[in-house]
Amino acid sequence: MARPTPIKLAKLPTRAPKSLDKDKIKNITKGYLDEINTLQNLMYAESKHSLLVIIQGMDASGKDGLIRDVFTNVNPLGIQVKSWKAPTAEELAHDFLWRIHQHTPAKGMIQLHNRSHYEDILITRVHQWIDDNTAKKRIQSISNFENHLFENNQTTILKFYLHISHEEQLLRLNERMQIPEKMWKYNENDLKESELWDDYMKYYEEAITLCNRPEWIIVPSDQNWYKNYVVAETLLKTLKSFKMEFPGMKKG
Amino acid sequence: MARPTPIKLAKLPTRAPKSLDKDKIKNITKGYLDEINTLQNLMYAESKHSLLVIIQGMDASGKDGLIRDVFTNVNPLGIQVKSWKAPTAEELAHDFLWRIHQHTPAKGMIQLHNRSHYEDILITRVHQWIDDNTAKKRIQSISNFENHLFENNQTTILKFYLHISHEEQLLRLNERMQIPEKMWKYNENDLKESELWDDYMKYYEEAITLCNRPEWIIVPSDQNWYKNYVVAETLLKTLKSFKMEFPGMKKG
Repeated sequence: MARPTPIKLAKLPTRAPKSLDKDKIKNITKGYLDEINTLQNLMYAESKHSLLVIIQGMDASGKDGLIRDVFTNVNPLGIQVKSWKAPTAEELAHDFLWRIHQHTPAKGMIQLHNRSHYEDILITRVHQWIDDNTAKKRIQSISNFENHLFENNQTTILKFYLHISHEEQLLRLNERMQIPEKMWKYNENDLKESELWDDYMKYYEEAITLCNRPEWIIVPSDQNWYKNYVVAETLLKTLKSFKMEFPGMKKG
Repeated sequence: MARPTPIKLAKLPTRAPKSLDKDKIKNITKGYLDEINTLQNLMYAESKHSLLVIIQGMDASGKDGLIRDVFTNVNPLGIQVKSWKAPTAEELAHDFLWRIHQHTPAKGMIQLHNRSHYEDILITRVHQWIDDNTAKKRIQSISNFENHLFENNQTTILKFYLHISHEEQLLRLNERMQIPEKMWKYNENDLKESELWDDYMKYYEEAITLCNRPEWIIVPSDQNWYKNYVVAETLLKTLKSFKMEFPGMKKG
């Protein structure tokens, strides 16, 4: 197999193209969200496809905000969110995909993963909780697992990396320390983690490069309106590609 | 990769070598079971290795009997049995390994699978519920999955095929229809399925040949005393290979 071209995050934009008009884009996004709502109801009715949406990004890159802004409009009957935290003792007693596999989408469903199995090759490497050999095995397992879900359950996987600049992150963490409504989001480790920015970028680049089938979508995320637009557009395009139809009456 | 040598079940014995003395072997097996009990307690204490034991075989090949005879002596704290039946609607809405992965062993545990994910490429093919292309994908997924468990959770997998002759099967099914204590095991489909013997052998041979890492253990199973002996011996050898030690006191 040919070695994949390495991704260089620092060379990719974190902001919208200058030519775009914010208000216009916000309006377009609104239209997309209505279409997504309609298509997701169809997806649920048809129960043929399933969709796994993985959302990764540095602290304060806007993962929670993305879920609120883009997915609030979706019928909760057809969508589930799982926010991954540090593994429990029971989860650690199994392979790292054990807890993940339990939360893969059933046919007809959209499953959001707020963070994901990629943390098992990101934060774990930055802090050297695992060695390179373990990471290598995990990378292979992730590729096989994602391929398995597609081949065996018509599970389409959308992987979004919310790409912010280090400056924007520091700005937002600072806000969290000062604005009362945002303080609950602040964790005293956040600034320490932020100092490890370069390490995180290095391991993100490796994860994205080596687990890039299906391809990651690198979302410029310094501006929320553009982030929402890119994700909504990708989601809509994906749902349309399913070419779904309402099934007839159930037999027997 | 080199094509693996095809397994031919009809050429493999279903009975013990003639030279063996039944009573002697039964005694040896008894000793093995005591050793297994001791080592399993150590395995539980150490919580480093995990063991997945897959038991496959035709109807009446003695799967339930094997579990009773060989595993009754094991501390139930450290062992779990999952008997797989036809999938539920919720299970069918996911990939075929979704339900299986949930029942893989935690560190320190022995997990028995009475039937397994192999049914998804056996009965399903005999009855043509899936096509060859789907089977091919599943075979690839099974190989990757089993490899993943070993590489990421120190999960050793023992796969036993309980090998009986067709004549022995018919004899046993006949018994089930006539002996009151055995009638509960008889299902009116059993004889119909038995007529599909050749098809089952064909797909078993393919499953064993293509998913043979870790290697299947083909257990001559026309005589229960020999079946128990082979399985107990393999299990004991495996537990010994772990080279386990009691851990010291817990820290913190």
